[in-house]
Amino acid sequence: MPETIRAAVMTAPRAALEIRAFPAPRPAPGGAVLQTLLSEVCGTDVHLHHGRLAGVPYPIIPGHVSCGRVLETGGSLNDVEGRPITTGQLVTFYDVFGTCGACWHCLVARAATRCPHRRVYGITTSARDGVLGGWAERIEILPGVRLLPLPDGVDPLAFMGGGCGLGTGLHAVERAQVALGDTVVVQGSGPVGLNAAVFAALSGAASVLVIGAPAPRLAVAREMDVDETLDLADAPAPADRVVWVRARTAGRGADAVIEATGNPQAVPEGLEMLRDAGRYVIVGQYTDAGDATINPHRHVNRRHATVLGCWGYEFTHFHRAIALLARHDRRLGWRRLVSRQYPLDRAGEALAAMAALEVVKAVFRP
Amino acid sequence: MPETIRAAVMTAPRAALEIRAFPAPRPAPGGAVLQTLLSEVCGTDVHLHHGRLAGVPYPIIPGHVSCGRVLETGGSLNDVEGRPITTGQLVTFYDVFGTCGACWHCLVARAATRCPHRRVYGITTSARDGVLGGWAERIEILPGVRLLPLPDGVDPLAFMGGGCGLGTGLHAVERAQVALGDTVVVQGSGPVGLNAAVFAALSGAASVLVIGAPAPRLAVAREMDVDETLDLADAPAPADRVVWVRARTAGRGADAVIEATGNPQAVPEGLEMLRDAGRYVIVGQYTDAGDATINPHRHVNRRHATVLGCWGYEFTHFHRAIALLARHDRRLGWRRLVSRQYPLDRAGEALAAMAALEVVKAVFRP
Amino acid sequence: MPETIRAAVMTAPRAALEIRAFPAPRPAPGGAVLQTLLSEVCGTDVHLHHGRLAGVPYPIIPGHVSCGRVLETGGSLNDVEGRPITTGQLVTFYDVFGTCGACWHCLVARAATRCPHRRVYGITTSARDGVLGGWAERIEILPGVRLLPLPDGVDPLAFMGGGCGLGTGLHAVERAQVALGDTVVVQGSGPVGLNAAVFAALSGAASVLVIGAPAPRLAVAREMDVDETLDLADAPAPADRVVWVRARTAGRGADAVIEATGNPQAVPEGLEMLRDAGRYVIVGQYTDAGDATINPHRHVNRRHATVLGCWGYEFTHFHRAIALLARHDRRLGWRRLVSRQYPLDRAGEALAAMAALEVVKAVFRP
Amino acid sequence: MPETIRAAVMTAPRAALEIRAFPAPRPAPGGAVLQTLLSEVCGTDVHLHHGRLAGVPYPIIPGHVSCGRVLETGGSLNDVEGRPITTGQLVTFYDVFGTCGACWHCLVARAATRCPHRRVYGITTSARDGVLGGWAERIEILPGVRLLPLPDGVDPLAFMGGGCGLGTGLHAVERAQVALGDTVVVQGSGPVGLNAAVFAALSGAASVLVIGAPAPRLAVAREMDVDETLDLADAPAPADRVVWVRARTAGRGADAVIEATGNPQAVPEGLEMLRDAGRYVIVGQYTDAGDATINPHRHVNRRHATVLGCWGYEFTHFHRAIALLARHDRRLGWRRLVSRQYPLDRAGEALAAMAALEVVKAVFRP
Repeated sequence: MPETIRAAVMTAPRAALEIRAFPAPRPAPGGAVLQTLLSEVCGTDVHLHHGRLAGVPYPIIPGHVSCGRVLETGGSLNDVEGRPITTGQLVTFYDVFGTCGACWHCLVARAATRCPHRRVYGITTSARDGVLGGWAERIEILPGVRLLPLPDGVDPLAFMGGGCGLGTGLHAVERAQVALGDTVVVQGSGPVGLNAAVFAALSGAASVLVIGAPAPRLAVAREMDVDETLDLADAPAPADRVVWVRARTAGRGADAVIEATGNPQAVPEGLEMLRDAGRYVIVGQYTDAGDATINPHRHVNRRHATVLGCWGYEFTHFHRAIALLARHDRRLGWRRLVSRQYPLDRAGEALAAMAALEVVKAVFRP
Repeated sequence: MPETIRAAVMTAPRAALEIRAFPAPRPAPGGAVLQTLLSEVCGTDVHLHHGRLAGVPYPIIPGHVSCGRVLETGGSLNDVEGRPITTGQLVTFYDVFGTCGACWHCLVARAATRCPHRRVYGITTSARDGVLGGWAERIEILPGVRLLPLPDGVDPLAFMGGGCGLGTGLHAVERAQVALGDTVVVQGSGPVGLNAAVFAALSGAASVLVIGAPAPRLAVAREMDVDETLDLADAPAPADRVVWVRARTAGRGADAVIEATGNPQAVPEGLEMLRDAGRYVIVGQYTDAGDATINPHRHVNRRHATVLGCWGYEFTHFHRAIALLARHDRRLGWRRLVSRQYPLDRAGEALAAMAALEVVKAVFRP
Repeated sequence: MPETIRAAVMTAPRAALEIRAFPAPRPAPGGAVLQTLLSEVCGTDVHLHHGRLAGVPYPIIPGHVSCGRVLETGGSLNDVEGRPITTGQLVTFYDVFGTCGACWHCLVARAATRCPHRRVYGITTSARDGVLGGWAERIEILPGVRLLPLPDGVDPLAFMGGGCGLGTGLHAVERAQVALGDTVVVQGSGPVGLNAAVFAALSGAASVLVIGAPAPRLAVAREMDVDETLDLADAPAPADRVVWVRARTAGRGADAVIEATGNPQAVPEGLEMLRDAGRYVIVGQYTDAGDATINPHRHVNRRHATVLGCWGYEFTHFHRAIALLARHDRRLGWRRLVSRQYPLDRAGEALAAMAALEVVKAVFRP
Repeated sequence: MPETIRAAVMTAPRAALEIRAFPAPRPAPGGAVLQTLLSEVCGTDVHLHHGRLAGVPYPIIPGHVSCGRVLETGGSLNDVEGRPITTGQLVTFYDVFGTCGACWHCLVARAATRCPHRRVYGITTSARDGVLGGWAERIEILPGVRLLPLPDGVDPLAFMGGGCGLGTGLHAVERAQVALGDTVVVQGSGPVGLNAAVFAALSGAASVLVIGAPAPRLAVAREMDVDETLDLADAPAPADRVVWVRARTAGRGADAVIEATGNPQAVPEGLEMLRDAGRYVIVGQYTDAGDATINPHRHVNRRHATVLGCWGYEFTHFHRAIALLARHDRRLGWRRLVSRQYPLDRAGEALAAMAALEVVKAVFRP
């Protein structure tokens, strides 16, 4: 084995990415080391680079969802089904760890994504503590981090096309309580929006509508079983977008609307798209992008609306999303979300392409 | 029987109430006539007088929740339990009628309170169409309107203390999904807020906190099993009220917060009082009192909050609330919510007292 | 118009079907008359012929789910979306009517399928009261019966392939609370079982398994996106069928199991197929086919199981199922459930084929 | 500190209890030692003595729910609210531990009470492994076991009156989805049944009915806010008990029925007491006491019933139950459930009294 490995390091907000050498990680008992196959660039990485998240322990090695082959394990490990994890196996891992199982949020509220001890690979892990991010030749899997084998036949690029959008999108759709036959609108056509649209369709929606930009992302949506899309370029006024939705819902508005834009102004707009007694999920406001003005009477109270925030995802969401990817990828083709692949030393370029919306999703192949 | 009866008529917004004579109503087949015993003055009546509701067919006879004795029925009638309604019986009735059972909202969404055909006694019924409001010596019960006998032993004044707050408060608490042991905050100490607080306690909350004014309303809350109250006069700054809630919830915020104020600014304030993954019910924005500014990231998305509008109430809520009143009134004493009783010809005075918050609830005894 | 029309009449249990002439129906105000295009033969019709349902007002014209063209309406009618119903339009109708909207079950429990006033075309309607069943050249649509236009492009034979299984199957799947990624087992491969399997897949199950017979029905299941089937002929012992399910669920049992067999012995068998904390839906016990022995400790209490009866379906289920048929029929092909088409005068033959399981579904083309 | 402590040991099924000396336990890091104040005798202890549970590692020190004072901690410990645990503090602890947080049931199904790694003090802990049961002068609290301070003012005897029935009863009521205004029947008047009845009332039931024996237990029920009770001695025939329930529910049956008897025959009986579309919870079948015969058509399918098994309880249930005990004990008086107190060396006598139903609950005061 080599004595060092290379990783892309974000040393501080707005600083250029650096390629640094790290001692090759070795597994702690109950842990493992992966040979990275692919790691994603997602909107969160852009936020990290813009310094928009609080409490990030720079320098960090970004890359929260990744896949790779098991190089070495610290003793025998099993997956959640009880099957042994073997060397050479193609796996991903649930990027969230450290959820304590002992605090009020974990034990009383059973709201695990709000445990204050929760940590996330590539976001709240410092490069000082190890190779705990995917933009690296190898990744250290700490004890307690949950490995998930990719099911047989799943194309790693298709998996990465889903990436962190798998768990986030599925969780958002779960929150939306999609009923069989519903019409679901998704605001936003980034990776989270596209995955939410796909899972809404898989949940039994009779019609899924996506509003977003630019056009290539909407083309991907239509290829992945979305019924209709609206390009922001074709309807720059919010009121026109509301009219577009109402024209497709007998004037009533949609049964569920999922916000996945990152823009606070999407919230009042999306509430206007919602039918009375409908459900509105806010999943796109991962960072504080500012306030929004709503009318509590018209948007919520008289509308008898249910508005649901959706934070992070739990292991179950990630696990279930992968099971559905395995079942439906042949028909839906998540691979098409991966616009470009980069080597590690072009990390800055990959981030810039993501920030400019030139790609749906970029991945590293270190 | 007399040939005419008297009723208080609101002829137009802001106009003085008038006492007018109407032909004594006679029941249509399937309908009934009540001799009014008591009818309420509630916040909606103040809104009606201020012209704050759209589509009101003035002139109207206000008074949506009332009780009285059955004078005459148009053939045999049964209550919902299948028992016959008899002359002389003390009853109330579900003030909402005309829900069509045939539209998309009724049949597909099963969202009966959003049926566009829904009508309400004393609000969307014109005095031109009959004595369809409670501020009158008699009330015409149209065919299809649901009579509910007051259970044996229920004091009519206690029932009126609950009034329309019974169904509204219980529906709000149902929306709040109160779990056994929860801490529930109610913003607002009007009739809806007080009833919501009572039903939150009856739902198994371990702690119910009410924030409102003026002091006599808060005293009533404490007499009705509310654990602690905060007077707006003692904490005029919203931030201090948030601190007060957090101090009583280990710093986390409440499991559920119910807004019952009518003030849009209560919404962002209440969201700050909510724990992560908590539930926030908006029931107090019955009219459009303006916009509110929220932070979608902090208030909803990261908080994993569930925000629930609550519009009107269904028969089931009113029926269940009366069953609980019958069980708990001896201990809780809804009677204390009735601050003053008025004869019909002092309708203007009663409205003014309600508008000035001089009373918790005023009732007419026509 | 002709003065009489022909209908197949079931005069009494076990009696041969008769073709009788009836006066051509005319619409009452708010009603309509359909020219029958297709009407189904379903398992209930076999039960009716065997006298297994209580309270059936023989003679009856069977046929509860049908489609046809609007011949005449009693004034202007709208569908649930508010669009006018026009002469010549291809429609079906919700076969349940008379739900009162006034009883305890309707108003307090909101359990509409248990309203004691509920009636069903072709089952609880007597031929003495009109042409109120689909095995007839025309069908009288009573006022209050809900017409549903078949969406553009829906093949009437595909719709009939679903037939009453559409609403029943969708309701069963709604009860099963299928989560994204679940494994769902369906016991039984009749029309209800097959539709339940299809809707389970459309609800986001990652794996749907059907256990039934005979082989042609299982072949249909596999053609309609069911993952695997088990033929009772290949596993005649219940324990082997349980083993088959456990082998496909890491030994745990399925997340949800839907019983659609009509055989009480399926219940303990299905409970053995269920994972801990799973959901078991009983929808196949439409008539009393006898008792079953369960072990309350092992099957329910320790298993932390949820067992859900499912009776009938509401308008919303039928409406939603048709919307999903319209979206997915091109891919799934409900048409293949229709094994044979019969003219009216071969009603006895059609019933016999259904009773002998020679067909998945037979339809009349009167 | 003494070098040894005394504990009552159940060496094998049916064997006489023995008092043995054990080395005085010392806390591991993250653990603690309690000076036992009180420990309960419950139905499970009778089952343990009768050898009715599988996999019990005899010899055991029984006593799963207990309270005591903190003697010593292995480093600093906090409660779930983040407050430090201090020496001398009066605490109880959640008797379940070892739930792995890593298996399919924990992570995917989020069904923590079905984790196969779950262990329980006094039931699945061997006396060979330490003083891991409450029938002892001291109790070793292993690392990871959750301590809960008894709230100020809670009488330890009242807490023990609830005992393990607190969490079990609250969990059963949570499963029953009690709606405000419901009528709830509890079958069984042992500690679980009585606590379920109390929590049903606290959840907002308008009427709670308990069917059980012997008379003193029913008297306790009525003193604790239960509306009516039926003594099995007064209605030895199941059909008469069903009639009694139907007479109190307008002939419909109860909205929810909770089985807490331990007798499989209670299941078909209880299903007959249930209204259409009601909920039936099976919580009393903690051991395999045999089969029951139900009619799937009549009891479940046509009834549109929901039948819910309820296994164990989670920390949240225990925590919430204690919060409610603190709020309501002054009014309800859980203390009255403790019929007798025993010293440790009369363990056999206590067990015999419990088995003979001579006591509602017996406690040890070691």
